[in-house]
Amino acid sequence: MDLFKKCYDFTRADEVKALGVYPYFRPIEENEGPVVQIEGRKVIMAGSNNYLGLTAHPKVKEAAIKAVEKYGTGCSGSRYLTGTLDLHIELEERLAKFFSTEAVLLFSTGYQTAQGIIPTLVNRGEYVVSDKDNHACIVAGQMMARGATAELVRYKHNDMKDLERVLEKLPLDAPKLIVSDGVFSTGGEIVDLPTLVQLAKKYNARTLIDDAHAVGVIGKGGRGTASEFGLENGVDMTMGTFSKTFASLGGFVASKAKVIDYLKHHSSALIFSASPTPAAVAAALAALELLEENPDLVKKLIRNANKVRTELTAAGFNVIQGRTAIVPVIVGDDNLAFQMWRKLYDAGVFVNVFISPGVPQGRQMMRTSYMASHEDEHLDYIIDTFKKVGAELGLI
Amino acid sequence: MDLFKKCYDFTRADEVKALGVYPYFRPIEENEGPVVQIEGRKVIMAGSNNYLGLTAHPKVKEAAIKAVEKYGTGCSGSRYLTGTLDLHIELEERLAKFFSTEAVLLFSTGYQTAQGIIPTLVNRGEYVVSDKDNHACIVAGQMMARGATAELVRYKHNDMKDLERVLEKLPLDAPKLIVSDGVFSTGGEIVDLPTLVQLAKKYNARTLIDDAHAVGVIGKGGRGTASEFGLENGVDMTMGTFSKTFASLGGFVASKAKVIDYLKHHSSALIFSASPTPAAVAAALAALELLEENPDLVKKLIRNANKVRTELTAAGFNVIQGRTAIVPVIVGDDNLAFQMWRKLYDAGVFVNVFISPGVPQGRQMMRTSYMASHEDEHLDYIIDTFKKVGAELGLI
Repeated sequence: MDLFKKCYDFTRADEVKALGVYPYFRPIEENEGPVVQIEGRKVIMAGSNNYLGLTAHPKVKEAAIKAVEKYGTGCSGSRYLTGTLDLHIELEERLAKFFSTEAVLLFSTGYQTAQGIIPTLVNRGEYVVSDKDNHACIVAGQMMARGATAELVRYKHNDMKDLERVLEKLPLDAPKLIVSDGVFSTGGEIVDLPTLVQLAKKYNARTLIDDAHAVGVIGKGGRGTASEFGLENGVDMTMGTFSKTFASLGGFVASKAKVIDYLKHHSSALIFSASPTPAAVAAALAALELLEENPDLVKKLIRNANKVRTELTAAGFNVIQGRTAIVPVIVGDDNLAFQMWRKLYDAGVFVNVFISPGVPQGRQMMRTSYMASHEDEHLDYIIDTFKKVGAELGLI
Repeated sequence: MDLFKKCYDFTRADEVKALGVYPYFRPIEENEGPVVQIEGRKVIMAGSNNYLGLTAHPKVKEAAIKAVEKYGTGCSGSRYLTGTLDLHIELEERLAKFFSTEAVLLFSTGYQTAQGIIPTLVNRGEYVVSDKDNHACIVAGQMMARGATAELVRYKHNDMKDLERVLEKLPLDAPKLIVSDGVFSTGGEIVDLPTLVQLAKKYNARTLIDDAHAVGVIGKGGRGTASEFGLENGVDMTMGTFSKTFASLGGFVASKAKVIDYLKHHSSALIFSASPTPAAVAAALAALELLEENPDLVKKLIRNANKVRTELTAAGFNVIQGRTAIVPVIVGDDNLAFQMWRKLYDAGVFVNVFISPGVPQGRQMMRTSYMASHEDEHLDYIIDTFKKVGAELGLI
């Protein structure tokens, strides 16, 4: 058999395209934040991770431009060798201060961060203990650890009873790492951190929380999940991304200095990957500064998401409840999901479609997410359009 | 035992720092290409992957700045969902034309590209067949594939007899992917592509060549390894990076349209990672344009590397011979390598130190690499400094 047979047999994307409801890889031609231009037409964006709306902020753009002027367009090397700028160190120190942690280490993407940590720390005879709904970047990291003969066990999504059931079965003395999203990326739920931290202590495990969808969203001044629960000293490592709240690209991990120092000298995803570009680092620095200076941005973001969540629920939609920036509207069927996406798009609203097997059957959804820069006129239009399209499709 | 025990026990970096010869994570304060400023002092850079010297080129910088102005500082989403710009598609189409291939797909880092391909295409019951000296990003990809129960076998470095020995043992009908660097990143050797391609045909394997250190360096007008051997139709997939010749950050794979389409809809490293920033894509586009318009840049790069290679060899250094931009000078001992690095650095020359276990015992090296923007005054200074320091340390 040919390795490429699976490629030649793959026709689903073409079929969805033929139906005119293909929602993926749509090129954006202009981006002002809440409104973007796609196919020559302005649409309201209700599916971006640009939580604080800072990718178009004049100060963030100016910082990126100045960095290009001063340092050029790329670093041409890894942090380890020739790719460290004073700018990288400044961002690490500023983030460490922001999170009140000893040290921070940058990675070139948020996606690469989990695999920069997990297989580096969890070796043969040691255990990754992972929530079944963790983000794909954690799955990638744990697969890599397993490929290098570490042990991998999973527990039911955010189910602390199941986590304890799993931990009880492992040798108490064996080193373990419990990994969980802080805010889960599909449904927007917050991890039961107090119980997770208790169980980690009881069963000799360290903890890694992925705050990609939590920083800028929950916790004091947007400081994420540990801060939300007052457990800043209970979480061993917090990782995050620059491609959401921080208006850029890249990732980071915050922890004790000795842990960061070990990662700096052993992490393949750090040592063998070119460092974040000057423009990306400068943009994240400027966004961090704006977040520190304007905690009201976080309040406006949550207020915006709450408004849509409340009104779509009141209108009769099956909405996953929560208190983050993610508002998932369950549709429950692949074809219905594609149809709804198309109707919303034609009416000028862009959302993300999650279908099976990305989500379980029956959980197919319009995954919407909000920004601090959405105004009421945008939100009202999104809500009204959902109601109109939902009624047409018999969902409400 | 505590998972973090390995971190608290790790002291080697501190020991090397205490000796004053720690060469890693040195922050660069200014970067004009061949000359950079570190710790307030100008040094000649002889360890960058900025092969064509384009990170500081006015046209590349201008393109990045215009992209920030037009599109903002980040895309806040993956290519799959809300992170595709018309700019991404333009770069994919331009690269496909450059490589005379049907289609190209971008990834957010070069490092992430291998894992975007290997575990996506090689599943349970299928084989990754990998050179033992392949780059760490390929190792990451094959570990992930193995973690997801694909089979992994390795062959001796660039040894086609050993590759055949390995292939003979596998079921002929089983799908296989042979993966190799085009130009190996440590020693700069070129893969024996004609034999590799022959063996792939004979043993029912597809091929993936990592041209990170080959594009802009070898082949017609810098088109890489397949072009170097006139085997453009013999290689199934070529991957590359934007953080070397292309003066930016990101990666790509070039292949048949059906293969690219499959990767677009199945690759975790693509679907779940934020897309390359507008500035990064625009910089790569501008660099590609400069490469197409100025094939002499490639000639100057090779001429520069050849000059240093020839003169250091003539001076009596143990130099790994080759014809790429990488000129490794074997030192053969960890402590000697750190000492030599320090003496070169103090004299104003920055190189990369490769020590064990990154390279085998006895292969510890000063790994130098060159740029089209090095002038003879830079190269002569590098050569003279090597001679002076090499004599002091008894290496020549």
